[in-house]
Amino acid sequence: MEVRPKRLNEMWLFEEQTHNMKLGLRITQVLRNIKTQYQDLLVVDTPEYGKVMVLDGAIQVTERDEFCYHEMMAHLALCSHPNPERVLIVGGGDGGTLREVLRHDSVKEAFLVDIDQEVIRAARDFFPTLSCAMDDPRARVLPMDALKFIEDNRESFDVVIVDSTDPVEFAAGLFEAPFYANVHRSLKEDGFIVCQTESPFSDPHVVAGAIQDLRKVFPVVKLAVGFMPTYPTGFWTYGIGTKGLDPAEVRRPAPEGTRYYSHEIHRAAFVLPPFLKSMIG
Amino acid sequence: MEVRPKRLNEMWLFEEQTHNMKLGLRITQVLRNIKTQYQDLLVVDTPEYGKVMVLDGAIQVTERDEFCYHEMMAHLALCSHPNPERVLIVGGGDGGTLREVLRHDSVKEAFLVDIDQEVIRAARDFFPTLSCAMDDPRARVLPMDALKFIEDNRESFDVVIVDSTDPVEFAAGLFEAPFYANVHRSLKEDGFIVCQTESPFSDPHVVAGAIQDLRKVFPVVKLAVGFMPTYPTGFWTYGIGTKGLDPAEVRRPAPEGTRYYSHEIHRAAFVLPPFLKSMIG
Repeated sequence: MEVRPKRLNEMWLFEEQTHNMKLGLRITQVLRNIKTQYQDLLVVDTPEYGKVMVLDGAIQVTERDEFCYHEMMAHLALCSHPNPERVLIVGGGDGGTLREVLRHDSVKEAFLVDIDQEVIRAARDFFPTLSCAMDDPRARVLPMDALKFIEDNRESFDVVIVDSTDPVEFAAGLFEAPFYANVHRSLKEDGFIVCQTESPFSDPHVVAGAIQDLRKVFPVVKLAVGFMPTYPTGFWTYGIGTKGLDPAEVRRPAPEGTRYYSHEIHRAAFVLPPFLKSMIG
Repeated sequence: MEVRPKRLNEMWLFEEQTHNMKLGLRITQVLRNIKTQYQDLLVVDTPEYGKVMVLDGAIQVTERDEFCYHEMMAHLALCSHPNPERVLIVGGGDGGTLREVLRHDSVKEAFLVDIDQEVIRAARDFFPTLSCAMDDPRARVLPMDALKFIEDNRESFDVVIVDSTDPVEFAAGLFEAPFYANVHRSLKEDGFIVCQTESPFSDPHVVAGAIQDLRKVFPVVKLAVGFMPTYPTGFWTYGIGTKGLDPAEVRRPAPEGTRYYSHEIHRAAFVLPPFLKSMIG
């Protein structure tokens, strides 16, 4: 009888970050695996990053490193805007950006408008540390098309945060000038738009294109950078447009207890390596 | 007869970044695959990052993103030291750090001491854009044990750069206090040590331990951060110790034509997110 060493069952999630690069995370459990009306939704548990939500093959959020991304998405604008009261989050159905937005006492109403109800449901079922803020009395969670919502709300918001999936399929329009023009119309005079604009190594054309298109609409546009381990290359960018204010300037206190963001990090995030400055022209 | 869609031959390099996380890069060609006296050495060509050198399963260098790492390893110390003339690189057999060091006109002699002659050979054979500096008349390339070399060179160097592999096997000692004490003895009065100290997400104990051990030996110790896409999590740290000078202060011009480093980046690199400040205590 042949004696073979005992082998373990292994499960791995492989994210195709580009056609030629993959990130693999060991899986201990598959918690949800469904096709929603809009996308494939997967929730797994992993030893490395805790619970992970994946949409159409792309990692959206992990319990362990989500703070790096959500703190930057919220506080770069909310600590620079002089008095943010009404905030709109486009996408962001996991609730992480909403949680950070609502840490600002100035905020009276925060709208989370995500097209996919199932993302919101999965966040409530598996990511309580992210979705907790959805029950805040200042939160308005609307499962609908953000484009429609923006058209109906002119000059209404202080800050619009575009917390979208990658620029493919139904989310592609969220990285283009016509959408930015709609956001511009929905913003008050001191308004800020913040967009996640991908990695300069895995998607240089997206970074450059988004900044170019933001500039067509907003008089002031800057790019900030931040670490985000589970997003492709770990090197993430945030495009910010305003109607005149400099987003690199800090005007309000940071919420207490942040783990990634600080006023010092705010200012440092706008310092770009020379190659990235060249990339956005 | 069964008709099946044509399938392509695929080759992938999978780097086990931790026990529970992998980075995969598509391979077009295997250029070298040998066991040296010290480690497994692999050189592959990839569509995503160009040529890649792998030692004992860990990616050391890729043509496309090496500048992010090598510019930081060299210029953080060389732009802060008032007059760096003699520089020692421990490890770094690919030549990338040496290339950046020799961009400083003040440098009269730069020693590259790598224990593995085969790494130097592979760099010369496949990475001409890194190994080019080995032929500079100021370069001294020595395939030998750096520990021995340091013992024989007291109060000799302005800057020592520890460009080592991960802290396992023969490189483990390079992250500990006795080694740092040897480096301290080999440094002149204004001396700097720079060490790559891994990622706070994939190896938090290494970051914290290296800083703790540097502090046992050097009166001034600071941590800097930088993006490095193909290293685990893309979030890299650089531990710097001096005999008194503040390494966050810039004292000399940056070389022209850098792509990652600038004086602004230098200052911003020492701004740490709150969670990382806590980690190093």
